[in-house]
Amino acid sequence: MFKRILVANRGECAIRIIRSCRELGIESVAIYSEADAHALHVKKADRAVMIGPDPVKSYLNIHRIVGVALDSGCDAVHPGYGFLSENDEFARAIIDAGLTYIGPSPDAIRDMGSKTKARESMIAAGVPVIPGSDGALNNVDEALELAHKMGYPVMLKAAAGGGGRGIRRCDSDAQLRENYVVTQREAMAAFGSDILFMEKCIVEPHHIEFQVLADSHGNTVHLFERDCSIQRRNQKLIEIAPSNFLTPKLRESMGAIAVKAAQAVGYVNAGTVEFLVDKDRNFWFMEMNTRLQVEHTITETITGVDIVAQQISIAAGEALPFTQADLSFRGFAIEFRINAEDPKNNFLPMPGRITRYISPGGMGVRVDGCVYAGYEIPPYYDSMCAKLTVSGLNWHNTVMRAQRALGEYDIRGMKTTLPFYRTIASSEVFMQGEFNTGFMDQHPELLDYNDNERREDIAAAVAMAIAVHAGL
Amino acid sequence: MFKRILVANRGECAIRIIRSCRELGIESVAIYSEADAHALHVKKADRAVMIGPDPVKSYLNIHRIVGVALDSGCDAVHPGYGFLSENDEFARAIIDAGLTYIGPSPDAIRDMGSKTKARESMIAAGVPVIPGSDGALNNVDEALELAHKMGYPVMLKAAAGGGGRGIRRCDSDAQLRENYVVTQREAMAAFGSDILFMEKCIVEPHHIEFQVLADSHGNTVHLFERDCSIQRRNQKLIEIAPSNFLTPKLRESMGAIAVKAAQAVGYVNAGTVEFLVDKDRNFWFMEMNTRLQVEHTITETITGVDIVAQQISIAAGEALPFTQADLSFRGFAIEFRINAEDPKNNFLPMPGRITRYISPGGMGVRVDGCVYAGYEIPPYYDSMCAKLTVSGLNWHNTVMRAQRALGEYDIRGMKTTLPFYRTIASSEVFMQGEFNTGFMDQHPELLDYNDNERREDIAAAVAMAIAVHAGL
Repeated sequence: MFKRILVANRGECAIRIIRSCRELGIESVAIYSEADAHALHVKKADRAVMIGPDPVKSYLNIHRIVGVALDSGCDAVHPGYGFLSENDEFARAIIDAGLTYIGPSPDAIRDMGSKTKARESMIAAGVPVIPGSDGALNNVDEALELAHKMGYPVMLKAAAGGGGRGIRRCDSDAQLRENYVVTQREAMAAFGSDILFMEKCIVEPHHIEFQVLADSHGNTVHLFERDCSIQRRNQKLIEIAPSNFLTPKLRESMGAIAVKAAQAVGYVNAGTVEFLVDKDRNFWFMEMNTRLQVEHTITETITGVDIVAQQISIAAGEALPFTQADLSFRGFAIEFRINAEDPKNNFLPMPGRITRYISPGGMGVRVDGCVYAGYEIPPYYDSMCAKLTVSGLNWHNTVMRAQRALGEYDIRGMKTTLPFYRTIASSEVFMQGEFNTGFMDQHPELLDYNDNERREDIAAAVAMAIAVHAGL
Repeated sequence: MFKRILVANRGECAIRIIRSCRELGIESVAIYSEADAHALHVKKADRAVMIGPDPVKSYLNIHRIVGVALDSGCDAVHPGYGFLSENDEFARAIIDAGLTYIGPSPDAIRDMGSKTKARESMIAAGVPVIPGSDGALNNVDEALELAHKMGYPVMLKAAAGGGGRGIRRCDSDAQLRENYVVTQREAMAAFGSDILFMEKCIVEPHHIEFQVLADSHGNTVHLFERDCSIQRRNQKLIEIAPSNFLTPKLRESMGAIAVKAAQAVGYVNAGTVEFLVDKDRNFWFMEMNTRLQVEHTITETITGVDIVAQQISIAAGEALPFTQADLSFRGFAIEFRINAEDPKNNFLPMPGRITRYISPGGMGVRVDGCVYAGYEIPPYYDSMCAKLTVSGLNWHNTVMRAQRALGEYDIRGMKTTLPFYRTIASSEVFMQGEFNTGFMDQHPELLDYNDNERREDIAAAVAMAIAVHAGL
C-alpha cells in the first residue's frame, strides 16, 4: 500500500480524498494556490505545499505538481475531479516520474475522452449507442435518408463544434433541409469546417449513469446507478440513487452493459458509464467518465462502499474485495450541491465571507463541506460550499429527510442554492420521484421561491473577521 | 397521525425527536428552562415554551409540562431519555389529560422499573435471569448452601440498598461468612433493614442489549444488539453495533429471547432488553429500559430504521412496517459521547463557552449535536456536546473512520472527552474489537493521553461573545 499520496485538487474534493487516505493509514499531501491559503483542505492534509500565485493555473501546472509529489516523497497521486482529472498527459507525466496515478491508464483517459473513439469502441463491443451517421454526412439527401430511417427528431451537429454550439434539432424534412444549409454556413464561420454529422434526438431523456469499479486482476463490477436527470444547461444540480425510473430487470441489464463497456476498453479503476434513457426505457451509451464523479457520495451511501478507498486499493494493485453478487444497496440517497450562487440571477456565483455556518446533522445526513464560519470563498473557483447527501429506507422518507436537513442548513454571508433546493425538495413533482432532463424547463415555478435572505449583521462580519485574523 | 408533539426534553435528545417529527410532517413544541434560552433545541422546534426558572426542576415538573402540552394544542408527548422518561406517573398524567404518551404503558414502565417485579416476570416467561436467592436469605447457612450450588464468586446484596451501596462480592465460604455479618450490620445502619439476598457474580461480563420494537397489533421485533461494555462506573462511554462477541447463532437466540421478554409483559413501543454475557457466552437478563436509549443511533445506522419515527408511528396506532424476516443490518457502527468533561480529572464536567466548533463530516459520519460556536454550556445538565456515530462495512474500516472523524472534530473553549476517545480509538485493544465491562480497569493506560489542550485566544472568546450578543 502507498505511504503518501499527493492530492492534486482543492476544496471539498481534496478533503474527500484526504479522508480516505487517513482511514487507510496513508499520509496525504495537499497543494494550494496563494488564494487558497485559508482553504480547509490545506488544514486537513498531513502536509500542504503552496504551488503558485495563480489561483487557477497553479492547479493545472503538471510539471509543478509532479515536482511537488516527488519532492514530498509521495508514491502516488490522486487527481480528484475537475482540474487535471481527465488529462491523459497528466496521468502519463505521473507514471513517467515513477509514481502511481490513482485512476485509469492514460490511454483509457484519452480514448474515452474522444467522443468518436469512445463511440467506435462501444459499437465494436456491442454496447448500444445513439443511432446516427457514424461520421460525416456527404449531402442533405444522405441526411434526409438517414432521418427517415431513424425517425424525427434528429440533431444536426457540426463535427468541429462543441460546448453546445453548432447543434440544431430538426423535426421535419423541411426543417432538416433548412438547417442543413444554415448549420453548414455557421459551422464554417465559427469553426472553419462545414462538416456535419447527425444523431437521433432523444427527447427529454433520463440521464442515468452506472458506477463501475475494475481492478488490475480482471475483475469488474458495477455499484448500481445514479439518476442525474435534474440538470440546468447540462450542469447536474441534484442526483439520486437508485433511479426510481429503472425496473430491477433494466437495472440488471444496464449494469451488465456498463461492465461490458469498461471491459471492452480494458478499463482499470473507478469510472462512470453514462446512458441516456428515453421514456420507453430504451437506453444508449452517452460517454464514460474516467474519474471519480462529484455525485459518488450517493452510491457510497446506498452501498456502503468507499469508492475513493477502492480507487486507492485498485491503484496499489489489490483485487476488489467483492464480486457483483456480494453487492447490494439499501434505500435511497439524494445529493444536493450547495453552492454560493444566486439561482434567481442565472446561478451567478456569490463569493464572499461566510458569517455563519451551521450544517445539518442527525440520521441519514452526510455533509462533505469545505467551508467554515469566517471563511472567505475565493472568486476563482467553482462556488461549492458543500455537498449534502441524505438517505432513507424509501423514497418518501428520503425526501422528507432532505426537506428537514435543507431546513436546518444555515449559511449566512451570501446567497446560496439552499432556498432553491428547499423549494425543489418540498415540491410535489420532486416527491413523485421520476424526472427527466427536461425537469427544470418543465417546472420554471421552482425558481419562483421566497428568497428569505437574512441580512447578516455588520457585527457578525466584524466578529468573524476578528476571529479569523486571530488565527482561530 | 399526530399533528403536534410536545418534546419533554432538552439538548441533543430533544433535537433528535424534533428531527423525526419534521420528517413525519408533525409540528414540534419544545420546552426550556430560563437557563436554556440559547439552547439549540429551542431554535430547532416549530415552537418553544419557557417552563420555569429552575434549570432542572422545570424539566421534571409533570403538572407544568402536561399543561403546556394542552395549551399548545399538542396531541402527544415524547419523553426522550433521562428526566421523566421512566416515570410512570408522568406517562399516566399525559394519558389522563387525554394525550398520547409516546412510549410504553405506565404499568410496563412501573413493572420493568422494579428489579424484583421484572425478575419475576422474566422467570415466569422462561427468560434466563442471573441465578440467586430469589428473595430474602434467612441465615448464613442458607447463603452458604446456595453459594455451593451456584459456585463462587457470589454477590451479597442488601434488599434495601441501591446505587452500588450495600453490595459485597464473596469468593469463598470464609469471605461469605464474614461479609454476611458485615453487610447485615451496614445495611441496617444505612437503610434500616438487614434483609440480604444473593446473586451469582458474573465476572467482567459483556453488556449486550437488544433493541425491541412492538406495535399495538401484537407484532414484536428486535433490531439486533448493541455492545455497551465500555463503561466507567456503570456509565456507558462507547457503544458498538453489532457486537463482535456474538456468534450469529447466539444473536438469533438472544434476539428471540428479547422479543419473548417484551411480549411477556405486553410491551408496546421501543424498549431495550439488557443482558449480561459471560466469557463462555452464557447470558442472563439484567433489565429492560422502557424508553429510547442514548445509543439508539448505532442501531439506526446499521439497520437504516428510524427508531424515533417508529416510536411515533407505534404510538399513533400504526402497525410495524416490517417483520423480523425483513430486518437485517449492514456493517458496524460506533457511538462516542462527546462530553465537556475532563477524563483525567475524574470526568469532571467543564461547562463554559465554546469558542470554536467544527464537526467532522464525510462518509460514514453522523453527528447528533446540540452546541455551536458561541454557545455557553450551562452547568446544570449533563455535559454532552454531541454524539458521534461512525460506520463502515467492517470493524477495521469503522475503527479507522472513527480515528479520522475524532481527529477532525474541533471543539475549543473547554476540555472535552475527544482526546480520550482518540486514544481509545487508536489503541490496539480497541481495534481487537472484543471487550467486557472490565475494559477501563484493564486498560488504565488509556487515560494516560497527551491532553494537547489548545489555549483559546482571548480574541476568539471576545469575537464569539460579540457574535452571540449580536443575536447571530
